[in-house]
Amino acid sequence: MPLAAAIRTIPDYPKKGILFRDITTLLGDARAFRKAVDELVQPWSGSKMDKVAGMEARGFILGGAVAHQLSAGFVPIRKKGKLPHKTVSISYELEYGTDEMEMHEDAVSPGDRVILVDDLIATGGTAEGAIGLLRKMGAEIIAACFVIDLPELGGAKRLEALDVPVRSLVTFEGH
Amino acid sequence: MPLAAAIRTIPDYPKKGILFRDITTLLGDARAFRKAVDELVQPWSGSKMDKVAGMEARGFILGGAVAHQLSAGFVPIRKKGKLPHKTVSISYELEYGTDEMEMHEDAVSPGDRVILVDDLIATGGTAEGAIGLLRKMGAEIIAACFVIDLPELGGAKRLEALDVPVRSLVTFEGH
Repeated sequence: MPLAAAIRTIPDYPKKGILFRDITTLLGDARAFRKAVDELVQPWSGSKMDKVAGMEARGFILGGAVAHQLSAGFVPIRKKGKLPHKTVSISYELEYGTDEMEMHEDAVSPGDRVILVDDLIATGGTAEGAIGLLRKMGAEIIAACFVIDLPELGGAKRLEALDVPVRSLVTFEGH
Repeated sequence: MPLAAAIRTIPDYPKKGILFRDITTLLGDARAFRKAVDELVQPWSGSKMDKVAGMEARGFILGGAVAHQLSAGFVPIRKKGKLPHKTVSISYELEYGTDEMEMHEDAVSPGDRVILVDDLIATGGTAEGAIGLLRKMGAEIIAACFVIDLPELGGAKRLEALDVPVRSLVTFEGH
């Protein structure tokens, strides 16, 4: 079964006119989940990866599985105020206004090879923030990986302009 | 290295007198993360598991990795209002008052064999809520697995009283 068929589309969520791509049906399908994780990491299956970074909250699910598959450590990137130790923070764009995300300052070491993982890339605002945080602490971003890309929103191009290779498995037109 | 040594203790967080057990250092250590996941699932490594359920947000990291390791699907249990499709909800105890958690109503099927995963069990209030949700939809709870148990807070006994076997890897006295 193609991965796209495991993703549920919910019309008019969270507001009228939006087709929400619900990845929980893919995560809950053992074969689709395994296939998505295996395909996401396929280019790096033989190479050493130090860390996999994932963004709260859905990025934690795929990120945890990808870190396990690559035998890497996992780095959580969280909303402000959720991490207990010393953090570095960065502001990032939301649809309206900005917010802050944080990472523990000792979560990566200079030169660490890191993959960023999330379920979906839309405008790329949160991913750009995460890349900024990781680079601030000296990490080398090997790639940003997403199950779903919404190319009309331009996120992948935005990350490529930051010299971050983007890998995605399923593309949906519209948003 | 024993797993306990990979867990960072932060005194007086989130408030004075609390020793906070910070699992991010374990997650970030590739060998410790892999060891924790492998030990958590060890009793079921040969048997069929349908789903692994994890609670937002830290439970998503370990839960995603455990689901991948067991070739099971993953079921997110989230705070109210975060899931896009039809949900079932249950209220659960917080230190002061109650809150609600939700699961998609089609996330498990009657008879599904499910493991619940979280980073830590303290009083067991959130785990009890998650077990209630999963059983409401007919799932069979095979076990609840945690990296850290704080036995003085009684959570493991509380779940065992619900006929849920509890597996934990590291025990800390005090809370």
